[in-house]
Amino acid sequence: MSSLADVLARLDERADASLAELMAFASIPSVSAQPGHTPDMHRAAQWLSERLKRAGLKTVELWPTAGHAAVYGEYLDAGEDAPTLLVYGHYDVQPPDPLEKWQTPPFTPTVKGERIYGRGVSDDKGPLLLTVQVVDAYLSTLGRLPLNLKFLFEGEEEIGSAHLNELVAQNAERLKADFVLSADGGMWSAETPSLTVSARGLAALELTVRGPAKDLHSGRHGGSVHNPLHALSALIAGLHDGSGRVTVPGFYDGVSELTPQQRDGIQHLPFTDEAYLAQTGASAVYGEEGYSTLERQWHRPTLEINGMWGGYTGEGSKTVLPSEAHAKITCRLVPGQEPERVAQLLRTHLEANLPPGVTLELHPSEHGARAYHLPEDHPGAVVAREVLAGLYGKPPLDVGMGGSIPVLETFQSVLGLDTVFFSFAVGDEDIHAPNEFFRVPRLYEGQNAWAQFWWTLGEKKNE
Amino acid sequence: MSSLADVLARLDERADASLAELMAFASIPSVSAQPGHTPDMHRAAQWLSERLKRAGLKTVELWPTAGHAAVYGEYLDAGEDAPTLLVYGHYDVQPPDPLEKWQTPPFTPTVKGERIYGRGVSDDKGPLLLTVQVVDAYLSTLGRLPLNLKFLFEGEEEIGSAHLNELVAQNAERLKADFVLSADGGMWSAETPSLTVSARGLAALELTVRGPAKDLHSGRHGGSVHNPLHALSALIAGLHDGSGRVTVPGFYDGVSELTPQQRDGIQHLPFTDEAYLAQTGASAVYGEEGYSTLERQWHRPTLEINGMWGGYTGEGSKTVLPSEAHAKITCRLVPGQEPERVAQLLRTHLEANLPPGVTLELHPSEHGARAYHLPEDHPGAVVAREVLAGLYGKPPLDVGMGGSIPVLETFQSVLGLDTVFFSFAVGDEDIHAPNEFFRVPRLYEGQNAWAQFWWTLGEKKNE
Repeated sequence: MSSLADVLARLDERADASLAELMAFASIPSVSAQPGHTPDMHRAAQWLSERLKRAGLKTVELWPTAGHAAVYGEYLDAGEDAPTLLVYGHYDVQPPDPLEKWQTPPFTPTVKGERIYGRGVSDDKGPLLLTVQVVDAYLSTLGRLPLNLKFLFEGEEEIGSAHLNELVAQNAERLKADFVLSADGGMWSAETPSLTVSARGLAALELTVRGPAKDLHSGRHGGSVHNPLHALSALIAGLHDGSGRVTVPGFYDGVSELTPQQRDGIQHLPFTDEAYLAQTGASAVYGEEGYSTLERQWHRPTLEINGMWGGYTGEGSKTVLPSEAHAKITCRLVPGQEPERVAQLLRTHLEANLPPGVTLELHPSEHGARAYHLPEDHPGAVVAREVLAGLYGKPPLDVGMGGSIPVLETFQSVLGLDTVFFSFAVGDEDIHAPNEFFRVPRLYEGQNAWAQFWWTLGEKKNE
Repeated sequence: MSSLADVLARLDERADASLAELMAFASIPSVSAQPGHTPDMHRAAQWLSERLKRAGLKTVELWPTAGHAAVYGEYLDAGEDAPTLLVYGHYDVQPPDPLEKWQTPPFTPTVKGERIYGRGVSDDKGPLLLTVQVVDAYLSTLGRLPLNLKFLFEGEEEIGSAHLNELVAQNAERLKADFVLSADGGMWSAETPSLTVSARGLAALELTVRGPAKDLHSGRHGGSVHNPLHALSALIAGLHDGSGRVTVPGFYDGVSELTPQQRDGIQHLPFTDEAYLAQTGASAVYGEEGYSTLERQWHRPTLEINGMWGGYTGEGSKTVLPSEAHAKITCRLVPGQEPERVAQLLRTHLEANLPPGVTLELHPSEHGARAYHLPEDHPGAVVAREVLAGLYGKPPLDVGMGGSIPVLETFQSVLGLDTVFFSFAVGDEDIHAPNEFFRVPRLYEGQNAWAQFWWTLGEKKNE
């Protein structure tokens, strides 16, 4: 075991350098959703490729797609008998909007106490980068890794991994592995280790309601043609009933009730609505009747409006009856729901409920993913539990994930691989919101854990 | 009458110069709603003052307010026995948004055929400027005007004339007149002269619905706290019932049913829903059941959403559950409705219907006005009918106005004056919308009509 100790000591020596690298990486505004940031996406991919090469990987490649390129790297010198892991992460980040709510500039990573603030530090640049730093520590001390590794870092996770399916299918042979170890994901809390065993899927739709051919004066025309904002509000309001259930016919088809085990597990988690409300700042929990908060987040499908706009939204007033109104919708799915079918049900329902005097334009989204569940006795889950228990002095909690990672579906359906989440981001780090942050100690705990995970898995195979 | 002929001949000579002046005036982006345009507001007021001086007025003043200044000018040399008119107009314009829908830049006035395009050319810079050009023609030919004139051109009409009440009250003595002749307003169509005998009032409110203290990830948190966009949609959707009536309790209190005369007058107007739909591009008329389109526009109160926004509204997708959502509301009022009471009823109703888990913030607006009605036998109405009948070869139609001019209320309540609309803007000129235009021939017809109106009123007094 002295070899692993050397690796951990090297990581310790490089602690400040590791943090500095994260700041450099997170200063690149790799916003995949906004075409204006395409040059930054190139820069981020280039930066990451070079870091993989400096870590000692001989094979590092940029894999282009019709969208943003993926960064691929591999280490196969552990030999055919050693286990092979496919390490997944993403170097793209969410748009930083609303900019005015950031207390430090989103792309000027800033350390305050034990936190580093900046867009993408938690999702997913910190958790991703630490895996590369562990490779560096292994190769620069032992000159070898205890297992074979393949790294696939994509640039389209925040826009639904639109081209990953195709890319993975094209490179299925090279991506063969025992399972996927994901640097993306999230841990239960800063104090309690956890293992994510399920994730909700996703179906998305954008809609435009059109009324008059041009914006009209709301004084002259108000009350005589339908206002698209009224029609849109009615459509949106009609998507839920008074008990918080989604009204789209067929939406719940195939959805199983929670098992007694699931309900029991959730009841014993250290979670209270009071603490949750304090964390989110909401005044009350709200949602489908008959379920607790975590039951709703992990095991019930939902429909949320992510954005809605129309008419005059600037300062002051403008008495306009707008010609169009827009909304972005995402549904979170649970096992039993097919993303394409849910999107189709939603389209059908919206069209059937359209009031007279307006038309509806539906923009399909490639943003879709099935829900996921990790088998209890999966070898990766077993090692993860062992490493986390050793690191934190208590066994990890089994938790669900309200969010979606479309790549789970890709790895499952295209490569036949399960995915084990092994991220050191914590769920309260304001990802997808202003003032995203990552806990600096988690960078080091994550390095330690990944170093142990690889060591343990390699050792087990050799036992 | 040869004197009037000289004035009209001078206007003819200056036709091209008149148009060039309008282009210069409309090239100043005097957007009162946007603080960034304050220097442009100053420039526009200055430009207008100088034009009044060049027309020959000896007394021209800038009247400051807590907001934008008004431009005042007077001619009192017709003597105490001559009639005195207060000419009203406004030099501020609507914001040009959405910019991308303009075919020519909004502040680069562009002549195409018989139209001039640009923000404010129809509302109200063209109709306002022509009155100054008529003064110029009188004084440069006859050296006198047939009546006393006071000009009050404000800079806050598009933001509800917030400080006009105070300004008019402070200067009540100087503003004394027989009645107000307004260069703001609108005519029925390009072919048919009309006289506006009523205008709807206005009550406005802006609301913000707040949920969580910060934007949340809609995957993790969706379905467990209330989404402000859902709550806002439900509030907005609940403001009308299935028959197009406003549901706010008390909203219709004091509203009279249309008289048989009103219904009969409207039925005989050259108006069809088909032509109206062709003009607006809407697919169907829509509104309160039991009323025709013009009945709804002129004599029924309405509630319209002018803008609504929240969450991510940019390109691509962002899976956010936003912390807040916003809407701007205006109500159009008819005689019997008090703006403040209607705004209060709306506030009470919104608060009473707020779902759990969100809070409501209501921003009151100073934007308020009672509805107006011009007496049938008003001397200004009599002259207007005579001039218009002579100019167009047919008597003008009596029409209502769906929009509101808060100054009507000010002139009535503070000065005790009636207002006669004598504008040469036409209702289809896309005011408050992209590609606003004014008909160039109307500039000249308007000059001719104002010259005749003053002459006729001065003559009548001398008979």
